[in-house]
Amino acid sequence: MDFLQKLKSKWNEGKFVCVGLDKGDFEFDKGIIDQTHDLVSCYKLQSAFYELEGVKGWKDLKASVDYIKQNHPDLPVILDAKRGDIGNSNEAYVKAIFDELGVDAVTVHPYLGKESLQPFLDRTDKGVIVLVRTSNPGAGEFQDLETSGKPLYQVIAEHVKEWNKSKNVGVVVGATYPSELKIVRQIVGDMPILVPGIGAQGGDLKAVLRVGLDSNSQGLIINSSRGIIFADNPREAAQKLHEEITKTIS
Amino acid sequence: MDFLQKLKSKWNEGKFVCVGLDKGDFEFDKGIIDQTHDLVSCYKLQSAFYELEGVKGWKDLKASVDYIKQNHPDLPVILDAKRGDIGNSNEAYVKAIFDELGVDAVTVHPYLGKESLQPFLDRTDKGVIVLVRTSNPGAGEFQDLETSGKPLYQVIAEHVKEWNKSKNVGVVVGATYPSELKIVRQIVGDMPILVPGIGAQGGDLKAVLRVGLDSNSQGLIINSSRGIIFADNPREAAQKLHEEITKTIS
Repeated sequence: MDFLQKLKSKWNEGKFVCVGLDKGDFEFDKGIIDQTHDLVSCYKLQSAFYELEGVKGWKDLKASVDYIKQNHPDLPVILDAKRGDIGNSNEAYVKAIFDELGVDAVTVHPYLGKESLQPFLDRTDKGVIVLVRTSNPGAGEFQDLETSGKPLYQVIAEHVKEWNKSKNVGVVVGATYPSELKIVRQIVGDMPILVPGIGAQGGDLKAVLRVGLDSNSQGLIINSSRGIIFADNPREAAQKLHEEITKTIS
Repeated sequence: MDFLQKLKSKWNEGKFVCVGLDKGDFEFDKGIIDQTHDLVSCYKLQSAFYELEGVKGWKDLKASVDYIKQNHPDLPVILDAKRGDIGNSNEAYVKAIFDELGVDAVTVHPYLGKESLQPFLDRTDKGVIVLVRTSNPGAGEFQDLETSGKPLYQVIAEHVKEWNKSKNVGVVVGATYPSELKIVRQIVGDMPILVPGIGAQGGDLKAVLRVGLDSNSQGLIINSSRGIIFADNPREAAQKLHEEITKTIS
């Protein structure tokens, strides 16, 4: 099954929570996965925290991906690596991320344009999730610059929608920017939107659900990382988020 | 010595060539380094090609960095990783790249803005090289969008110049875009400009030198990767590029 099929299958089960694995440690991840796998739509592994541990981190990253794929093959795995290079180097990233590591989707930067991202876009079995509006406080410095009478992030969303010929592209919009999320949803139609920023970053879940769902009341990957994995009881934290979503949607 | 000091010391020796290590293999790198170290200003390791090899690649990346640092401690090492995430994750990248791996400089994406890059900018002993105008054919899709009456890449260059309070910031401009390079040099003054795209990508060396040098006839990191490392005789290829530069500058 490709990324979008796996994701839709989880949405059909009413699951939208994505647990962000931001610790960079396989044994830790294993504990979180064991506690949360029946509640979630996917896992998102933040590459930075594995890279921080050097060779051990790289081994742990592979081990965590393998653990999810072997024990929960129905759950898509996103590598949050925010890659983006020239085409020649992106070809290497594609092999590294989709073949060597074997995840289902990756986050990428838009700045070098579609031509550079073609090696990712050509992988129609995988998900390519493009940064549109990031969750950080200073996101607006460039993303809000006005171009063609609208902010840059909207122009990028319009382009990214056109890149989605093979239905393998999604976008990132931070939960900390619900007004922008509303506009991006209008632009991208039913494309998947990965929404980080719930929990530690203070995003507003109700606002996200009110404006971010697609016309089928689906389409959102709602990520919480620190708010779940560093909670006293990660399962309870994931369950609470899952239930808040279920309550608001239904 | 910090990144800029190392670099200036090489510029003072009349060396501007940066050899791009794009193979992802320590034994290969060792051969290239042994053949070229006396001709170059620095080495740039392209992270994608090491990541492609998984755990072995990560070990090789570390081994190549260590080999340069141990045998040629005067040569700065750039990791071409094009990272760029929210602040919390960038803190992890900073430790991964500057402390765990131990390189002197890294390339980063501007899209999330200064606030997100602060963990990099705070490392005043290291170099933070921001993508402004990339070398790929489709670079203009977003980088040329007009905002405030000028193309986006120019606005980004203006911001990046302001981020350089600690003299630890540089920019990337592709050799394939000499007109844009000229404008960026006018904007950033004497900040270092990393110029990829010479060789396999077809950049025009003479044009780069004519418009890209700073007021001291320095300021350029002229990278060639495939054109040197995959040449029949890498030393000859590096020497040829070095001599072409010397001839044009003097």
